[in-house]
Amino acid sequence: MRFQVLVRLKGGVLDVQGKAIETGLKDKKFNGLKNIRVGRVIELDVDGVSATEARAQVEEVCKLLLANPVIEQYEIKEA
Amino acid sequence: MRFQVLVRLKGGVLDVQGKAIETGLKDKKFNGLKNIRVGRVIELDVDGVSATEARAQVEEVCKLLLANPVIEQYEIKEA
Repeated sequence: MRFQVLVRLKGGVLDVQGKAIETGLKDKKFNGLKNIRVGRVIELDVDGVSATEARAQVEEVCKLLLANPVIEQYEIKEA
Repeated sequence: MRFQVLVRLKGGVLDVQGKAIETGLKDKKFNGLKNIRVGRVIELDVDGVSATEARAQVEEVCKLLLANPVIEQYEIKEA
């Protein structure tokens, strides 16, 4: 079973990478591109367990290793 | 109009972050989680142009700034 985890900065947190991209784009005259946010996407297989247990494991791994709960939020999707 | 761009390493390219996560998970007894690949997700608004033109701009920006075409591939979705 393959899952996709999207890890994004929480709303209020300054997105430095996003701002850098925005500045880069303005220099190149792309003025219509705005509100750029950069996050991570992690894709992984979970084998040998039920669908419910698989999702629970991914959830646990998100908290443990994949996202920093202070500044980031995560979203789990079945891929 | 909001777009989501997923930037992933191409198939044959070694994913060092993914391997690091896999090793971290094995240390914590998550042995069923495999084939971990880490990429970036970039979300952005495109204003003031038609849908076709907006997608063309995002495509151009991917090539120019968001992805390294030598080792990465990108996927554009409407969010």
